Amino acid sequence: MKKNGIKDAWNEGKSIVNGWSSMANTFSAEIMAASGFDSITLDMQHGLLGYQKVVEMLQAISGYDITPMVRVPWNEPSMVMKCLDAGAYGIICPMVNTKEECERFVSACKYAPRGNRSFGPVRARIYGGDDYFLHANDTLLNFAMIETSEAVDNLDKILSVEELDAVYVGPSDLAVTMGYIPYTYEKEVEDCIKHIVETCKKYNIKAGIHCPDGKTVKERFDMGYDLGTISADAALLTQASKREIANAKK
Amino acid sequence: MKKNGIKDAWNEGKSIVNGWSSMANTFSAEIMAASGFDSITLDMQHGLLGYQKVVEMLQAISGYDITPMVRVPWNEPSMVMKCLDAGAYGIICPMVNTKEECERFVSACKYAPRGNRSFGPVRARIYGGDDYFLHANDTLLNFAMIETSEAVDNLDKILSVEELDAVYVGPSDLAVTMGYIPYTYEKEVEDCIKHIVETCKKYNIKAGIHCPDGKTVKERFDMGYDLGTISADAALLTQASKREIANAKK
Amino acid sequence: MKKNGIKDAWNEGKSIVNGWSSMANTFSAEIMAASGFDSITLDMQHGLLGYQKVVEMLQAISGYDITPMVRVPWNEPSMVMKCLDAGAYGIICPMVNTKEECERFVSACKYAPRGNRSFGPVRARIYGGDDYFLHANDTLLNFAMIETSEAVDNLDKILSVEELDAVYVGPSDLAVTMGYIPYTYEKEVEDCIKHIVETCKKYNIKAGIHCPDGKTVKERFDMGYDLGTISADAALLTQASKREIANAKK
Amino acid sequence: MKKNGIKDAWNEGKSIVNGWSSMANTFSAEIMAASGFDSITLDMQHGLLGYQKVVEMLQAISGYDITPMVRVPWNEPSMVMKCLDAGAYGIICPMVNTKEECERFVSACKYAPRGNRSFGPVRARIYGGDDYFLHANDTLLNFAMIETSEAVDNLDKILSVEELDAVYVGPSDLAVTMGYIPYTYEKEVEDCIKHIVETCKKYNIKAGIHCPDGKTVKERFDMGYDLGTISADAALLTQASKREIANAKK
Amino acid sequence: MKKNGIKDAWNEGKSIVNGWSSMANTFSAEIMAASGFDSITLDMQHGLLGYQKVVEMLQAISGYDITPMVRVPWNEPSMVMKCLDAGAYGIICPMVNTKEECERFVSACKYAPRGNRSFGPVRARIYGGDDYFLHANDTLLNFAMIETSEAVDNLDKILSVEELDAVYVGPSDLAVTMGYIPYTYEKEVEDCIKHIVETCKKYNIKAGIHCPDGKTVKERFDMGYDLGTISADAALLTQASKREIANAKK
Amino acid sequence: MKKNGIKDAWNEGKSIVNGWSSMANTFSAEIMAASGFDSITLDMQHGLLGYQKVVEMLQAISGYDITPMVRVPWNEPSMVMKCLDAGAYGIICPMVNTKEECERFVSACKYAPRGNRSFGPVRARIYGGDDYFLHANDTLLNFAMIETSEAVDNLDKILSVEELDAVYVGPSDLAVTMGYIPYTYEKEVEDCIKHIVETCKKYNIKAGIHCPDGKTVKERFDMGYDLGTISADAALLTQASKREIANAKK
Repeated sequence: MKKNGIKDAWNEGKSIVNGWSSMANTFSAEIMAASGFDSITLDMQHGLLGYQKVVEMLQAISGYDITPMVRVPWNEPSMVMKCLDAGAYGIICPMVNTKEECERFVSACKYAPRGNRSFGPVRARIYGGDDYFLHANDTLLNFAMIETSEAVDNLDKILSVEELDAVYVGPSDLAVTMGYIPYTYEKEVEDCIKHIVETCKKYNIKAGIHCPDGKTVKERFDMGYDLGTISADAALLTQASKREIANAKK
Repeated sequence: MKKNGIKDAWNEGKSIVNGWSSMANTFSAEIMAASGFDSITLDMQHGLLGYQKVVEMLQAISGYDITPMVRVPWNEPSMVMKCLDAGAYGIICPMVNTKEECERFVSACKYAPRGNRSFGPVRARIYGGDDYFLHANDTLLNFAMIETSEAVDNLDKILSVEELDAVYVGPSDLAVTMGYIPYTYEKEVEDCIKHIVETCKKYNIKAGIHCPDGKTVKERFDMGYDLGTISADAALLTQASKREIANAKK
Repeated sequence: MKKNGIKDAWNEGKSIVNGWSSMANTFSAEIMAASGFDSITLDMQHGLLGYQKVVEMLQAISGYDITPMVRVPWNEPSMVMKCLDAGAYGIICPMVNTKEECERFVSACKYAPRGNRSFGPVRARIYGGDDYFLHANDTLLNFAMIETSEAVDNLDKILSVEELDAVYVGPSDLAVTMGYIPYTYEKEVEDCIKHIVETCKKYNIKAGIHCPDGKTVKERFDMGYDLGTISADAALLTQASKREIANAKK
Repeated sequence: MKKNGIKDAWNEGKSIVNGWSSMANTFSAEIMAASGFDSITLDMQHGLLGYQKVVEMLQAISGYDITPMVRVPWNEPSMVMKCLDAGAYGIICPMVNTKEECERFVSACKYAPRGNRSFGPVRARIYGGDDYFLHANDTLLNFAMIETSEAVDNLDKILSVEELDAVYVGPSDLAVTMGYIPYTYEKEVEDCIKHIVETCKKYNIKAGIHCPDGKTVKERFDMGYDLGTISADAALLTQASKREIANAKK
Repeated sequence: MKKNGIKDAWNEGKSIVNGWSSMANTFSAEIMAASGFDSITLDMQHGLLGYQKVVEMLQAISGYDITPMVRVPWNEPSMVMKCLDAGAYGIICPMVNTKEECERFVSACKYAPRGNRSFGPVRARIYGGDDYFLHANDTLLNFAMIETSEAVDNLDKILSVEELDAVYVGPSDLAVTMGYIPYTYEKEVEDCIKHIVETCKKYNIKAGIHCPDGKTVKERFDMGYDLGTISADAALLTQASKREIANAKK
Repeated sequence: MKKNGIKDAWNEGKSIVNGWSSMANTFSAEIMAASGFDSITLDMQHGLLGYQKVVEMLQAISGYDITPMVRVPWNEPSMVMKCLDAGAYGIICPMVNTKEECERFVSACKYAPRGNRSFGPVRARIYGGDDYFLHANDTLLNFAMIETSEAVDNLDKILSVEELDAVYVGPSDLAVTMGYIPYTYEKEVEDCIKHIVETCKKYNIKAGIHCPDGKTVKERFDMGYDLGTISADAALLTQASKREIANAKK
């Protein structure tokens, strides 16, 4: 079975720079896959992606040296399994706030006896290889999102869930549920972000985090995070457009 | 009928900063339309856009304060007319190298007796207004691309074509047909770019030009050009991705 | 943040004529948006619309003076949030039969602390404005569908749910769950429809209702309803086709 | 090979009421196919239809008792052949103004030695039957559009083209090229419409015509026309919406 | 209402050969519908099909003499109802492991008072007929998938659920949950497959089963199964491609 | 620039087994790309493929060890160039019957001074590499289809066209234009097929040919052909379906 580039990199002590696709388009995904990201996550939660387009985008980035991941819209087994069957090598699940929710999520990612994933890797076997079933449980990655104050309260219980590979921190929702406005970087939120990664180290769970730009990704690596997302294609396009227009209208 | 923003701006002596859409996606087009461009051109020639997506993209940008244009794939009347019927307010036609080719193009843009455009503005009338037929010939813009050495040789004849509104210079193909590699900005090509805009002034024809960034757009305005394109969404996304990845991996 | 036209109209004491889109097509939606409706609802429950097309349809109607709404397929937080992130200004949720179901629904419509909506208004911020987060909770509308005898039994409890803005009555399912055939307008169903709007007045909750045509909408306004739907694009097209064919074949 | 319903009806002396699809949607096409039209034409010229959607629409209406036709965007052999291969049983070609243009068109509709249609009826053979090749030349219909004053001047020559089955009159473009505004029904245009059908009778060529409603179709039948179109889905939906809104807002 | 071909065949004592569509494509579905299958199932669980494409595929196969079915992604009422509204005549639901899960599933398939299906058969009424509501509960088929050891343990309880029409056995997941590798045909799994069909006979519940090829379908018929699937389009295309390539490279 | 696998194989004296995609679907294309074909041709002429789907299919097969090609619908420069810009490494052009038609075709495939291809390899540069412009003229392949008796008459002139890389024989159209029914393999057609490959050898032009199955491909290799197509996905799926159904119904 084709290896998971993120796992390999982590085993070599490297950090992962993750790209974030929120536009329902195969070419923008391919552009990002060819730009140097280590992994690309197709965002079905807040991004404008339906399932059909996710399949085509997974196909469009399969020829590049990146690990394809999907953030599913919600903690629902059907879409987790559909995305894995379509060839995703990692699943990020939003709003995992309790141990039970975490167990429900990771169970959907693993074949029995380690979970309840249904068998039928229609495209995954073509992308991953004929021995997909034998290695899938050990190759694919799951990320439970820690993004509410409730999840932080339950952090130890969540991190104790067997079969959990990693968490993914959503600073915006974390801020909102703590009573702040997104992107204001309050100290209480920052402290919490630090607390999460430190707790993860204790449980030997990898930690990823959403960031607005490359500079912040680097800072999060320095803080101990294993994966940082430069968010997102839509934002990059907006910022670049505005900057160039300003240059033209100077 | 809804006014043509480019014409209005030109009448007030303003230059136009044009955005360029090469990804077949309604959201990237909408992002650009909301970023401050004066006009957006959907590129059906080298961009990855089929007609069906062009319609949806025209719809997606109609609520913004931009003028919607399309570069058609080739000098063929059917697609020129289809794009106008879908609500485009300007058409850029590639590879107009002779007076006859220019006449064929502009004829497709105008209803009789000024051309041979067929009547049926199915969406254009909804976007433009019920009096569309009465004002379309005077409101919509056509741009003949000057992008080969042959076209430059025939420049005076092309610019003499009645009903031609503007030209649009393609520096890459100009360079290629002059024997150079694109984007190397040879002096001979630069001289030609200057020659074109100066000749346009003589014929009272507006001139637009493709540019790699905002800074170049500004330089072309200074040279006398009336419209400059910041090209393109795909390039903006690539560059922004690479820069942020570099920041993350520093 | 762009205002909610329905709320503004209601504040001025006006009733809302709502259009209903069941065909997965951007142009039919745009036609309806340009025809004079006050709001357009994209029907993901019984209409033939998947999420990807809903996004494109929301884009296609954004330039018109209507309030865009979506009826989600079911009381599931993921799709409620996805549609809000795509720019819907109102959500109609089917089959809200108990207080708990109503709480679950409205919670998905509001950011903390008033609900559990996840933050990421990727398109909504472009459509609504940069201050979207600050005003979304007070601007967007939620409608719980009252369409079963169970819901009618629980009406007082449902209407007591804090954060509920409005109900939306489905006469067909109401008839079916009361043991009747849809569209037969039994007295018992009619009495129930009257009972619902009267109860809503007591709780200061707005009431909308599905209607087969404009005449019925007017009657429902007279009965006290605040919003009436002329249902639906598919039915309008069928009826118009049959009438014109009959005229041709006379 | 499955019979051509239009030909059969004409052989029985019946006239054809044709529906017109300008929205790129399989369901609106299916609705029309189920409403009682004798044939449905998918309009690729002024309608918002790309080829891919045309295929899906042809599939969606294949189970109904109608004859499927396509108006191609222009007199280009490639799209004529593609639509026939996709299962169209009739092709309407716009802007056939000369004998040469007519010959070019009908040649694309027929296999050698009667034309130059390329062989490969990928879907047509599934829809039409395994003996498609043997009967296609005699089963499929071609309509040359007569819609300019030039075409009227060349009418006898056009109607003399061997292999031409029928003409289709476009009153709007006819009016425009005669110097009038569409839909004003000037006497000169009306006389011309009458002249065309009378000339067709002389050459034993069938005649169809575009009409705004069923009443006009009936009038054209009385004038001698063999096929009349009720135009179009978009117009029917607009009119029905406006009428019902007016009823609601009375 | 249009009859259900599977029910009719079963009443005549015939077995059903079912085709399986996992590619999101209207033409591959139509090819299968025209190839001689008795029914076609569109697989939304492991197949690469989103809802929008399912609608178009249901349309594309409606003209053929097959019964259209859908395997939904999961036991969720919203998608069960959406597929029925789109015209499916049978629903296969994965992972029905308990009596309660079975009740939840079949309830979504039936109108009150026999279930909680919401009324709005937007396309189903066009495909099925105007009396759809009156006969739907007795015409449409539901299949609960028995594919885990837990389901086998609960088999009697599941088969006792009123309104359950049939079960559908998934041998791969059955093998996985019993600790085996899919497609290895262990005796314990085979015994279980036999046990299921025998138990079904006792409860007068029909039984279908997934098979890798036609030969196995025949064997399952001999074992007492009422429906056998030749799985799937993707596998058929892969095998046929490899065989022909081998012939070419001999 | 990424190498052209067909050219490399030919240089090593190997023959090419080409797959043929006529279904507008990324997954069926990917399945074929993973099945062992040396090249895959997306058929826009008789296949049901529009341009937008072609782009997505080219993306879906880019990660596999095959050479991606497109058969364009017709000898029109716009689509030839659009497909090259989308990343096709070979273009097959139908109905090349004269030297002039051949010159027109090959000119569209080459940048100046060797042709008139317009510059803008938006996706091709991502797939092929940053030095795409420098090597494209020498890397990409063009195939002129010889498929009419007229083309055979003009064979020497066509094969003399500078910049022509290869021909591609269409036996069905060849048969039709010679007065036969497709797939009947008349001796006159067979002689002609032999004559073409022998003439190609004289001009040092490679020769490919359409075949119904792998066995015929092998026979054509023995006859001297350099590339043979196993046609097509649709046929493979039909045949495999019918065979397995027969096995089930034995």
